Parts: sequence; C-alpha cells; structure tokens
Amino acid sequence: MSVKALVFDVFGTVVDWRTSIIQQLQAFGRDRGIAMNWEDFVDDWKSCYRPGMDAVREGRLPWTNVNGIYRMKLDTLLRECGITALSEADTIRLNRTWHRCKPWPDVVAGLTRLKARYVLSTLSNGDVACMVNMAKFGGLPWDCLLCAEVFRHYKPDPEVYRGAIELLDFEPEEIMMVAAHNYDLRAARSHGMRTAFVPRRSEHGPGQTSDLKAEEDWDVAVSDFGELAAVMET
Amino acid sequence: MSVKALVFDVFGTVVDWRTSIIQQLQAFGRDRGIAMNWEDFVDDWKSCYRPGMDAVREGRLPWTNVNGIYRMKLDTLLRECGITALSEADTIRLNRTWHRCKPWPDVVAGLTRLKARYVLSTLSNGDVACMVNMAKFGGLPWDCLLCAEVFRHYKPDPEVYRGAIELLDFEPEEIMMVAAHNYDLRAARSHGMRTAFVPRRSEHGPGQTSDLKAEEDWDVAVSDFGELAAVMET
Repeated sequence: MSVKALVFDVFGTVVDWRTSIIQQLQAFGRDRGIAMNWEDFVDDWKSCYRPGMDAVREGRLPWTNVNGIYRMKLDTLLRECGITALSEADTIRLNRTWHRCKPWPDVVAGLTRLKARYVLSTLSNGDVACMVNMAKFGGLPWDCLLCAEVFRHYKPDPEVYRGAIELLDFEPEEIMMVAAHNYDLRAARSHGMRTAFVPRRSEHGPGQTSDLKAEEDWDVAVSDFGELAAVMET
Repeated sequence: MSVKALVFDVFGTVVDWRTSIIQQLQAFGRDRGIAMNWEDFVDDWKSCYRPGMDAVREGRLPWTNVNGIYRMKLDTLLRECGITALSEADTIRLNRTWHRCKPWPDVVAGLTRLKARYVLSTLSNGDVACMVNMAKFGGLPWDCLLCAEVFRHYKPDPEVYRGAIELLDFEPEEIMMVAAHNYDLRAARSHGMRTAFVPRRSEHGPGQTSDLKAEEDWDVAVSDFGELAAVMET
C-alpha cells in the first residue's frame, strides 16, 4: 500500500456521540429541574439523522446542513416532551451538544502517531463548524477538515469521496477511509480508496445490532486507533 | 470587539513565498546544472497569479485551481528558457514548490498564542492540498482550512468571505480577516468582518511598492503576528 492520507468518519468512529450527548442533556436537565429519560430522548433525536440526510440526497429536502436537520427534530421533540420554556439561546446550546462529543479513549494517541506519517482529514457528514469545535474540544490533531457541507452532498453520495480525492490531490488508492460503518467503506472502495474498519460496538448503546464486524475484506481491520497506528507504521 | 475566529490570507501574509521559491529553484538549478537568474524567473512566474485568478473571476477561464494556473505559466516559462529536458515528475515537483513556502519568522509563535483563544483558519486563494502540505511543512497550527478551491471563487469575490462566514457559523463581526493586502481587508470589511493589517514590505522583493502601509483605518494594524497576539489577548 502507498497510502499518503487517512480520512475519517467522525460520528461513531472518532467520537462517542451517544454517551457525550446523554451526559450533556442529563447535566442540562439537572440544572433546569427537568426530569426525563435522556437516553430515550437522544436515541429519538438521533433517529432523524439518516432520514434527514437521505431526504437531501434524494432531493426531497433542499440542502440542509446537519445542524439544521438536528434543529428541526429538536424543536419537535421539545414540544412533544412539553419542554416549552427554553430561550432561543438555550435551544441553540442544546443543538450544539453535537459539537462537544468526546473522542473514544484510543483516538487522540492514535491520531497523534498517525499524523507523523500521514495527512489526516475528517470525511464526515457533520458540518464545518462542528468539525472545528469538536477538534478544539477533544484535541483532535487534524491536518484538514473535509465534510459533507463542503461538497453539499452527504455520504454515501459519490461527490463526497470524489471531492476528497480531488481536493487532497492524491490518487484514490493513496487515500484510506477509516470508519466504523461498513456502508461508508463500501462507498469509499467503489471510488478506488483503501479501507480500514474499526468497530465501535457500543456506538448506539448496549443493544447495538449493526456494524458489529467487518462485512467485507477491508484492507485493514483493527480493534482501535492504537492498532491502526501500529499497522500503518509497518 | 467580540472576535471568535481569525482567518488569514496566506501567500505574503503568513509565508514568505518569494524567498522560499527562489531558494528551491536555485537548489534545483545547482542540482541539474541549469544556470539562470531564478529571481527573475520567480517574479515572472508569479506574474500569472492575479491575471489567472481574474480570468476565472470574470468568466474568461473555466474554474482552474491555483496549481493549474501556475502549471500553465510554468510550462510556458520552461519552454521560453529552453529548459526542455525535464520529466513530468520534475515539472510537478517544481510546481509544488508553492506547497513548501516558509512562514515569516514571527508566524508560528504568534499563531500558537492566538490558537489558545480563537479559531484560526486560512482564507487563501491557494488550493486545499497546498494549504495542507504547507501547514505540515511549516508547522502552522490551523484549526480549519478554508480557501478559494472550496468555494470555487477567488478573492475578492463575495462568495469567499460569505462562504467563510457561513461555514464557520459565526456572525460576520465575530470573524477577523488578517492580511498584508489592503484589497483583501477592504472586501472583508464590506461583508461586515473585522480587519487586521500586518505589513510584509519585502513580500515582492526589495523593490516592493504596494501594501507598504495600512490604507484605511483597519480595526487592528500591527507590525507582526507577535504584536497581533498581544493585541488580541487584551
């Protein structure tokens, strides 16, 4: 392999969004005296993500960034839960909990090792501001931030992968997609990119049923970013 | 001021491109036994930059990134100078000298201080791959890379400044444009951004006649990035 750049899925692969959002909402609830099953709230909130992006991909919704997709669902959820006394600033703050997700414990050390040899970029469906804020929050040492909002297309649309290949100015096989999601690697491989699978078996909580293992013979399959760094250093 | 992000012009403001390119071409010439006034060569090469971008801006040239603009001129110059024995790999390497420009001496320390308080992004006419490679080469601690290639418009087109405001998701007045070029600050101010002028009086060599001083009452006018950090820390 002659890999020069690694591009990373972020939500699930790099950060433990579910635990991070639940903890922030629980703290918010305690602060405001709002009793709620925040785990269910977050799972319900997150359920809008794929359908929202697919609505954009299929032309049923004009371009809307992830911030906008989550905000629409948040407004609905707050109303349904009878949480009606929030200011606009409060609601913006809640919607920005997605910008303050913690990396999995192996991430920062693994990325720091990989950065010495490779160009590291996000290739996320998240927004630019989210990538920027999360990198500062979590100490993620990216060389570049690429994401759906730059291309105005969501993964797995071809424009995202081809766009990354064009902007990074490498050959497709010089770029490795790193993801905890088989669908993302399938799309990356179809555009000639290398693939690395890192399972995150609790991304969706204890009952997770998807992406528990590599579903194809990805170029690399490792348990975490430490093992990824070790493999890519040889 | 309630500035949250600083966005930087790069060529001239952050890196001393002229000295860097001349030194690389001189080394190349020595290595290949090619005698040439490389200072004149570089000044001639650079002369294609603004006209090339303006041709794109005015619709006379379809979208072409800076790498492409420099490559067209390089091919012409090499032919005119009778340098005809280069391989394609050599020519690509020469064209990539723009990716290996050194920051001015005050830059890395200044940016490192500013990064503790602010989001730091490029807002350059250069390409994404150039921004990535130059950051790794020069140790530039960007939080985000924004540039013309992302917006498919060159400064001072409004799409670049408005695009940065949208993607960073701040109010215009929360973003400060830092540049050694008055035209760039004029455009940034017209979109509501804050402005900081840092003169680089030898960017174009000893005979420089433009941008020797602030031509308007920019929000900040300082001598270098150290002074910029000091002002922005108060």
